[in-house]
Amino acid sequence: MTALSPLAPACFPALPVLKGVRLASHACGVRYAGRTDLLLVELDPGSRVAGVFTRSLTASAPVEWCRKAVAGGRARLLVVNSGNANAFTGSAGVASVRRTVDQAAALIGCAAEEVTVSSTGTIGVRLPDEKITAAFGAVHAKLAGDAWEEAARAIMTTDTYPKGATRTASIDGVTVTINGIAKGSGMIAPDMATMLSYVFTDADIAAPALQALLSEGVKGSFNAITVDSDTSTSDTLLLFATAQAGNAPVADAADPRLADFKAKLFDLLRDLAHQVVRDGEGASKFVSIAVTGADSDQAAHIIAMAIANSPLVKTAIAGEDANWGRIVMAVGKAGQKADRDRLTIRIGGVLVAEKGEAAEGYDETPVAAHMKGQDIAIEVDLGLGAGRAQVWTCDLTHAYIDINGSYRT
Amino acid sequence: MTALSPLAPACFPALPVLKGVRLASHACGVRYAGRTDLLLVELDPGSRVAGVFTRSLTASAPVEWCRKAVAGGRARLLVVNSGNANAFTGSAGVASVRRTVDQAAALIGCAAEEVTVSSTGTIGVRLPDEKITAAFGAVHAKLAGDAWEEAARAIMTTDTYPKGATRTASIDGVTVTINGIAKGSGMIAPDMATMLSYVFTDADIAAPALQALLSEGVKGSFNAITVDSDTSTSDTLLLFATAQAGNAPVADAADPRLADFKAKLFDLLRDLAHQVVRDGEGASKFVSIAVTGADSDQAAHIIAMAIANSPLVKTAIAGEDANWGRIVMAVGKAGQKADRDRLTIRIGGVLVAEKGEAAEGYDETPVAAHMKGQDIAIEVDLGLGAGRAQVWTCDLTHAYIDINGSYRT
Repeated sequence: MTALSPLAPACFPALPVLKGVRLASHACGVRYAGRTDLLLVELDPGSRVAGVFTRSLTASAPVEWCRKAVAGGRARLLVVNSGNANAFTGSAGVASVRRTVDQAAALIGCAAEEVTVSSTGTIGVRLPDEKITAAFGAVHAKLAGDAWEEAARAIMTTDTYPKGATRTASIDGVTVTINGIAKGSGMIAPDMATMLSYVFTDADIAAPALQALLSEGVKGSFNAITVDSDTSTSDTLLLFATAQAGNAPVADAADPRLADFKAKLFDLLRDLAHQVVRDGEGASKFVSIAVTGADSDQAAHIIAMAIANSPLVKTAIAGEDANWGRIVMAVGKAGQKADRDRLTIRIGGVLVAEKGEAAEGYDETPVAAHMKGQDIAIEVDLGLGAGRAQVWTCDLTHAYIDINGSYRT
Repeated sequence: MTALSPLAPACFPALPVLKGVRLASHACGVRYAGRTDLLLVELDPGSRVAGVFTRSLTASAPVEWCRKAVAGGRARLLVVNSGNANAFTGSAGVASVRRTVDQAAALIGCAAEEVTVSSTGTIGVRLPDEKITAAFGAVHAKLAGDAWEEAARAIMTTDTYPKGATRTASIDGVTVTINGIAKGSGMIAPDMATMLSYVFTDADIAAPALQALLSEGVKGSFNAITVDSDTSTSDTLLLFATAQAGNAPVADAADPRLADFKAKLFDLLRDLAHQVVRDGEGASKFVSIAVTGADSDQAAHIIAMAIANSPLVKTAIAGEDANWGRIVMAVGKAGQKADRDRLTIRIGGVLVAEKGEAAEGYDETPVAAHMKGQDIAIEVDLGLGAGRAQVWTCDLTHAYIDINGSYRT
């Protein structure tokens, strides 16, 4: 096991019981010994679901299944295993999903399309789904409303800590709860480090509205983080709603009654996304990159990601080197409109470069001190327009090489 | 100094004297102590030039100058300094180039537009051009026809060995020579590792034809290599022709008399490009990636580069792990047309995966042996069309982090 990330939070937050959601984990031995590797979540009848998935063109069989299942908007069960991603497993992988879904549905008497499944772990190895389905009776008997931390632990792969977050929001005067868990040591990393996240609420919101909220919320959270630029075949984010909080049903994502819920949901998604970055493989620094003054928001996002994914920027940060020249390089290679002589760069709030060269009288002392901290802030203004973006990443250290360069077996 | 790359060639090749080209190097103390850091090359009157430059939108002042100078098609001098890239140096950098060019032109009485300049090294620091121009008299006095290896050494930054190559070709029965030198420890890396290459020939070929040949030749050589996906602000490739070999002048790149010249030029460019990859920062393996069966050649190139730039693929190779799942991941994230179930992957010539999963009866033993070698061959067939591409890269090791994560001063 890898040592706990130095950027880990002090503790797993206390996630409250959420009406209509019960969870349990189990050790069924898919790959790991001596730890849980199966999560089962049961949702009361009437629950809805929305989802966002990897844009990889080599997506896994579970992702393909979920895309279809989520389109129906209804959910009763979530089944997640760790240790094997059931990705690039051909027709055998599709059959594994089918058997898992059918037997899960039989367990509680729901439709197969109300079962969502995820797998995370090694890719290219056939999933021993019989180990999972054989455990269904045992894990179902353990379902409980307060098993959130155990749930977050069961889905971990190279993660060094379980990830969870909770918020409450008001919908038309009724308090609703949002709980979320996530796993991932990158966006990223098909071999044991896919990003998975499951968010649950008791709010009564229609499935199309949930989908609209989730699709918007992912932009400023999971789609604004990167560890190593590699995109998993299995990335999955699901949002379930049990509709038991007692609020008047809301059908439209633009309904003003959802304003507070939306803000709290987005905040929770960002919290979980940050926890994934803070557990990035080998991470020793958490890096915020804000780009302003770009030609468009999209251009700003592409430039911010070029900085966040640059191995030279990331190694400089690991070395606590305020090497702003590499930031200039990353802006230049992003392929978006940029004018070298209008760039402004700040590190830790200090102006380091403007007008095409180092800022006049630039004193590196406060910036060097900032680089020694755990939270690094980089701001780039293009000086061209009103486009802006914010992304988060971590540094690139020896530990990343150790984790990813070691042989699988 | 970093230790010699394990992938370095046994020796610097013997580059012959080339009619109309004289070279000299000098230690003028721009940044380094105890080594040469200035290269001067003088070309006889009547020489032509063509060039290809970085696509970075934050290109350096010398690159901007060269773009203009090369457009005129004539060249008499090349001035290159190492230690300082004169990049992101604002109006001061432009003035440095102007002073350097004007004083170089005065040295031999040519037009300023016949002087090409390059700078490589730290970025964001004003170039002490007075140290360079003060050395012009001394370096000019040393010009000689056989100073190729010294020339290749003077332009090195983080390179661990000087890079050179030579070929002869026949144009309509007349033998012509092509000599080239290069520097670079990446594509890449604005801080001390820009790619620069200068190629010289005595052939009598018109400037527009030289430009057409160079623009085509760069596709299968320098634009098909990557070390770390980062693009320098200063990448420069120049092709000079002195027209003294005695062949009948050729004005059109498509002239069949240039067939052999073109083949030899492309071979030399590829040789130099491979030498750059073999000196990639921290490289311990040279990796060839061939993609076939893609929707188009461009799609094949994008997919090949996605594999070549994937930190997860590169760390797996460093760890001698035949982790083909990461190759599938990289194909999936490239954004080009791909069908998971039609992919075929070979490593070291051995079929490892097809039809959406591990190849039937796949035995990892010969592949594991291949991974222990220095030359790694990856072949990916998309099974869709006739698009193909070939790129080269190196692995990602601890030494890369050491080189790039250490503080600049």
